[in-house]
Amino acid sequence: MRIGIVAPARAITPEAAARVQAFAAITFPQVDVVVHPQCFLEAGHFAGTDAQRAAAFLEFANDPGFDAIWFARGGYGSNRILGTVLPQLNRAAAAKAYLGYSDMGFLLGALYARRIGRQVHGPMPIDVGRSDGGASVGRALAWLVNRDAHVLEPNLDGRPAAAFNLAILEALVGTPWLPDLTDHVLYVEEVSEAIYRIDRMMFTVGNATQLHGLAGIRLGQVTDVPENGEFGETLDEIMTRWAGVLGVPYLGRAAIGHAAGNMVVPFGAG
Amino acid sequence: MRIGIVAPARAITPEAAARVQAFAAITFPQVDVVVHPQCFLEAGHFAGTDAQRAAAFLEFANDPGFDAIWFARGGYGSNRILGTVLPQLNRAAAAKAYLGYSDMGFLLGALYARRIGRQVHGPMPIDVGRSDGGASVGRALAWLVNRDAHVLEPNLDGRPAAAFNLAILEALVGTPWLPDLTDHVLYVEEVSEAIYRIDRMMFTVGNATQLHGLAGIRLGQVTDVPENGEFGETLDEIMTRWAGVLGVPYLGRAAIGHAAGNMVVPFGAG
Repeated sequence: MRIGIVAPARAITPEAAARVQAFAAITFPQVDVVVHPQCFLEAGHFAGTDAQRAAAFLEFANDPGFDAIWFARGGYGSNRILGTVLPQLNRAAAAKAYLGYSDMGFLLGALYARRIGRQVHGPMPIDVGRSDGGASVGRALAWLVNRDAHVLEPNLDGRPAAAFNLAILEALVGTPWLPDLTDHVLYVEEVSEAIYRIDRMMFTVGNATQLHGLAGIRLGQVTDVPENGEFGETLDEIMTRWAGVLGVPYLGRAAIGHAAGNMVVPFGAG
Repeated sequence: MRIGIVAPARAITPEAAARVQAFAAITFPQVDVVVHPQCFLEAGHFAGTDAQRAAAFLEFANDPGFDAIWFARGGYGSNRILGTVLPQLNRAAAAKAYLGYSDMGFLLGALYARRIGRQVHGPMPIDVGRSDGGASVGRALAWLVNRDAHVLEPNLDGRPAAAFNLAILEALVGTPWLPDLTDHVLYVEEVSEAIYRIDRMMFTVGNATQLHGLAGIRLGQVTDVPENGEFGETLDEIMTRWAGVLGVPYLGRAAIGHAAGNMVVPFGAG
């Protein structure tokens, strides 16, 4: 099995890439993890220019020699290549898995909207830097290599699912890049956003015309919340309010997020 | 003429309210500026509970004794009362002007979507705290009282216009609270957001199905941008890119924003 790593948003260091490859060589010796050199480029905020990031993604996605694309890290920027890459994906791209989270939700969402490949929300190579003994990256590899059910988010119940960082979901709402999530359980998570912003993003979700017909909403981890005074409502109250406006059940918390406990959520019926 | 001040988001102090009333008494002695006591309530993040803020807005908006509603300040929270207040507005509410900016874009947008009253993007009572000799609040009063054309944003050219804080616009996109802006020049401004977030919000604008048919986009002031490394593009480049994706012209900069130079933009044809 061959897994290709590209970075459609921000760069990783060669050291982080080498660590992931070493980890994979020890834990899944049958797997070849190939890191595209684009992952180390720097152009302003991004891992290379839009053209460089798009070209690297297309090169690996369209190569039938790869079984999966593992996104190196989030940050910001994968939305800027959607218009370029989506129309150029071939049959080999449609046969692949795509795994990542955070900003990669733009690509996962757009690929799912067009039913190109299998999209998976889960840990990325950058997570090798977590002090979790490799659990995060091991979880992503265990899913890609073995479809190991132990790494799945424990609330998955057979209904179709999709998972997004809330800010990325808000950015997708109102655009054709948002997939049809009718009958899906929607998982959201957030990092480094004040509670009033989470409430504001959930206003958009709760009022989104495109999201009528969800089976329910779950909230993952909300971490590194900046101090901003007392908001006056708990996260569960916020979620209950806006899910109610949308007319779908709030199903409670979930094990996804920008933290060590980021379990795997395959898009669709899994 | 009577102008009513309410606070659908965050509170102001009695001192700020008194200062605005004193300023109005000196500069426009024929005008009665009435401050609803709800403006001073505190409930978590907000100027009173959702019910209290909705009730104060409805009380003044539905009162034929007021000619205009002047929103006290932004912050966050006016979106939380839209579903309650919009269906309860009467004929007196439809005869009024509504003036504010920032978070008040939720109310201005929703009122404009339902063609209730005349919506105006401009300075608020909280701006009495700016060291601009009262120019900001004077500008708002000059429009409400005299329709003084000198306070209008200088690029207004007779085509219909609308103005929003970009984060509020992003939150509205994809919801039925966003008005139909076909053939409008859209003004946006932003404060305290990193450049990558402005780019991300403009991705949503540039891809928003609801915003096809704009006459063009203008960018107001972008102030208090947090340091976040080199992005790699100027604001004009960002605007040009996403306006191009939407297929509408980027018309350049404009004199609105969270700063002293916040000129008046009446929604619609003015």
